[in-house]
Amino acid sequence: MLTEGILFTDHYQLTMAQLYHRYGLADRSAQFDYLFRSYPDYGSHQAGYCITAGLGPLLEWMARTWFGREERAALRDIRSNNGARLFGEPFIDWLTRSEGFGSASMWAVPEGRVVHPNTPVLTVEAPLAVAQLLETPLLNRLNYATLIATKTSRVVEAAGGAAVMEFGMRRAPEAAATVATRSSLIAGAVGSSNFAASYQLGFPSKGTHAHSMVQVFMADSGSELDAFRAYADVYPDDCLLLVDTIDTLGSGIPNAITVFEELRRRGHRPVGIRLDSGDLAHLAIRSAAMLDAAGFEEVSIVLSSELDELTIWQIRNQISEEAARYGVEAGGLLDRLVDGGGTRLATSHGYSSLSGVFKLVAIEDSGGEWTPAIKISETPAKVPDPGRKRLWRGYDRRGTANADLVTLDDHDPDERPIRLVHPSRSDVGRTLTHYEVSEVESLRVKVLGNGRRVPNDAGDIEASRSRRDADLARLDPGVRRLVNPHTYHVSLSPELSDLKQHLIAGFKG
Amino acid sequence: MLTEGILFTDHYQLTMAQLYHRYGLADRSAQFDYLFRSYPDYGSHQAGYCITAGLGPLLEWMARTWFGREERAALRDIRSNNGARLFGEPFIDWLTRSEGFGSASMWAVPEGRVVHPNTPVLTVEAPLAVAQLLETPLLNRLNYATLIATKTSRVVEAAGGAAVMEFGMRRAPEAAATVATRSSLIAGAVGSSNFAASYQLGFPSKGTHAHSMVQVFMADSGSELDAFRAYADVYPDDCLLLVDTIDTLGSGIPNAITVFEELRRRGHRPVGIRLDSGDLAHLAIRSAAMLDAAGFEEVSIVLSSELDELTIWQIRNQISEEAARYGVEAGGLLDRLVDGGGTRLATSHGYSSLSGVFKLVAIEDSGGEWTPAIKISETPAKVPDPGRKRLWRGYDRRGTANADLVTLDDHDPDERPIRLVHPSRSDVGRTLTHYEVSEVESLRVKVLGNGRRVPNDAGDIEASRSRRDADLARLDPGVRRLVNPHTYHVSLSPELSDLKQHLIAGFKG
Repeated sequence: MLTEGILFTDHYQLTMAQLYHRYGLADRSAQFDYLFRSYPDYGSHQAGYCITAGLGPLLEWMARTWFGREERAALRDIRSNNGARLFGEPFIDWLTRSEGFGSASMWAVPEGRVVHPNTPVLTVEAPLAVAQLLETPLLNRLNYATLIATKTSRVVEAAGGAAVMEFGMRRAPEAAATVATRSSLIAGAVGSSNFAASYQLGFPSKGTHAHSMVQVFMADSGSELDAFRAYADVYPDDCLLLVDTIDTLGSGIPNAITVFEELRRRGHRPVGIRLDSGDLAHLAIRSAAMLDAAGFEEVSIVLSSELDELTIWQIRNQISEEAARYGVEAGGLLDRLVDGGGTRLATSHGYSSLSGVFKLVAIEDSGGEWTPAIKISETPAKVPDPGRKRLWRGYDRRGTANADLVTLDDHDPDERPIRLVHPSRSDVGRTLTHYEVSEVESLRVKVLGNGRRVPNDAGDIEASRSRRDADLARLDPGVRRLVNPHTYHVSLSPELSDLKQHLIAGFKG
Repeated sequence: MLTEGILFTDHYQLTMAQLYHRYGLADRSAQFDYLFRSYPDYGSHQAGYCITAGLGPLLEWMARTWFGREERAALRDIRSNNGARLFGEPFIDWLTRSEGFGSASMWAVPEGRVVHPNTPVLTVEAPLAVAQLLETPLLNRLNYATLIATKTSRVVEAAGGAAVMEFGMRRAPEAAATVATRSSLIAGAVGSSNFAASYQLGFPSKGTHAHSMVQVFMADSGSELDAFRAYADVYPDDCLLLVDTIDTLGSGIPNAITVFEELRRRGHRPVGIRLDSGDLAHLAIRSAAMLDAAGFEEVSIVLSSELDELTIWQIRNQISEEAARYGVEAGGLLDRLVDGGGTRLATSHGYSSLSGVFKLVAIEDSGGEWTPAIKISETPAKVPDPGRKRLWRGYDRRGTANADLVTLDDHDPDERPIRLVHPSRSDVGRTLTHYEVSEVESLRVKVLGNGRRVPNDAGDIEASRSRRDADLARLDPGVRRLVNPHTYHVSLSPELSDLKQHLIAGFKG
């Protein structure tokens, strides 16, 4: 499919690439940075960090993608307004001879890590025309994946110890449902309902049944109880029953208990119930009371229906306050909950796109020397940091991350004290002593060297899950807060700040 | 890829299908309706209609998809909690022998049409297990496609006569970018920047250049003017210049005019300029004044940067009010604008998922007779209409659509007067005379009969564009309004309303 290959890109990347070729610039080495401009702001709540995702699939796509026969034929078909071909044979020859992404190197923050706006999360070094062609597919792959990993991480935090399942594929954006599943697993979900994506990632999918199954038995002269019995019959050790088709407390739970008792007599362990409508907190408490009374203290209570971090947080608060009134121990109930994150998780409800950009920061001149490049803006905060750079994170003596630092490529922040400058206000700075920063970590790893994968786990899903957990444990609780989080500090080294100001002045002059 | 086949579905569809097989229900004919619950509400503005999309690609997917060797192997791999296989050979045999979607029939509102909530936009009739397996992939394909067609239609309306281009792929949800392009073309966009998707759909992609091209020339000791000259040199008849890299009015426009004059002397016609930052309305006026003064009254002025229906509407209002002050004729300027819809279009900014559902409405009993099925809810408006149905639209003598009517399958609304009943309040009704409804149209066509495509243009993109235009022309301006639109009426026939109330009573009893 043409839409899965290198032509999955914006038209202008191709016209620019041809221009670079015509002007002898196509093979000049260039560096582009991937960064995003701001944290997701969901309206009533805001993220204080993002979780990186999308690197692994991007690298796989790059390894198998370049111009083939079909792509060349498509280029030859495109017409200029004057009726002649838009893309000439010399350019198509160059594309055919080019190593494509086999000539690219890449440094990236591994997947699953906490990252912050306006830092070079990833840098590509490649011939200018190759890097330009990569822009759109790279942004398309990283933006949505990071957006959903970030949303899921918040949902998982709000869920406390409760397991989170991803259920969003029916309203996720078409094939991106597969990406949503992968991102949610990176960010702490324990599983997904998406069969194919889960299977390929090695996390077996999970599920219960739909209301339609109960409807079928009822339309066929049966009952909810008949439907539950059938499910328990076919899946005696995987019996999770949806109890809200008719009346949760009046019918669903009593019928589930009847079936669970039958299963227990036959030596099986029922798995749980699912609540999909109504006041989920109240119904969870009442259901727990009924299940407990029947001796099913262990079965899970799965919640679904437009859940996101705020609704989960509210449900858990309500349970904490209300459970005792019904003789239910709140802590025990909270521990047996499973939260299903559906539509709102898979579409990042409230903030549906990450503001990721891919900016030229350096290019080799005709003599082979690197020249920093800058793009100015009327908004100082939107001027990307120029030049070839590195990204660092400082930790205090308790191991809490307290600053991200962007430096030029030859900088060694192991010297103390560390001087930090505000990214857009060059007169604002501070100095961190050895006491304030006891450890400095380089955040990016090389993942691609001249097209060859550097063997590491930067795009591995299990490693990414561990990285997410470790990074959150080292993040200030104020930065993790669901609503109005503290702003984490990102700073520049004095040398980078000076270069930036110098280039801005020259650009305007 | 497993994620592109039949296993792109929710886990529970497979467990339910196996249960149906075990209980002899898998081959029972069943009807499921696709409907959505409400219009998109973008927060500060709301849709009063939706535009259908996604049918064509869904039918193509169904025609090529069922269980193959890889899918069977995956099913055999899945384990129950007891360690045994979850899916048995009898079920896998049944899947292998099943005709799959070759046994499905489908009636649908063709793509590009105006549709309203809680109406059966599409009905599938298939063996129960087959229809159940279709649920997730069908919802996944129709929900996002319809969401983006609806958003684009609003953007196109707000743009008045100006052309709308789709530029959203870099922040669209991964591979769904291709769907966004198709939906935007159905809903009135004139083109897209998405090269591969546009090429496959027969609408050549369009574009200009990026800031990075100007940066490259500047980093290489050149200037913005050098970059523009290079672009005009390579693309003399397709010269559209991005003018805001340095200073739109102080540098970009003067340099563009210089290059356009050079092109004109060489006998070429410049295409236009693009504005991507700042006060777009003001800059468009000032740019137009400068271009007009240089004799370039014809070149397009392309606007981009977080545009949606409200920002476009505001820009056009501001131009109408402010243009004369700079000696620019507002009408002429509005006609030469091109609006680029990017992130906000491709992610349906403000409302990121359509509430589409797929509900069982009828099933054959063991004697081969159809039995209506119902799913009740504590919210009466959420109870889907039961039974095998048809969908009609009434038009008044001026040709304006004034009511959608859902009836049972054997109903003929050509009789007058037409009696309408409120969908959830059965005591509320009205009667439309021949005078009020002069024409009644059946909205759905048969697109699939026992797996065979019925030859029609229901999923054709050009036909869909025409349908969208025709339907909008027949829609009340109050329903089309961008903010707080009138509510369009959807009603039931008395017979359907009676059946619904009867089934609800029986369900509760």
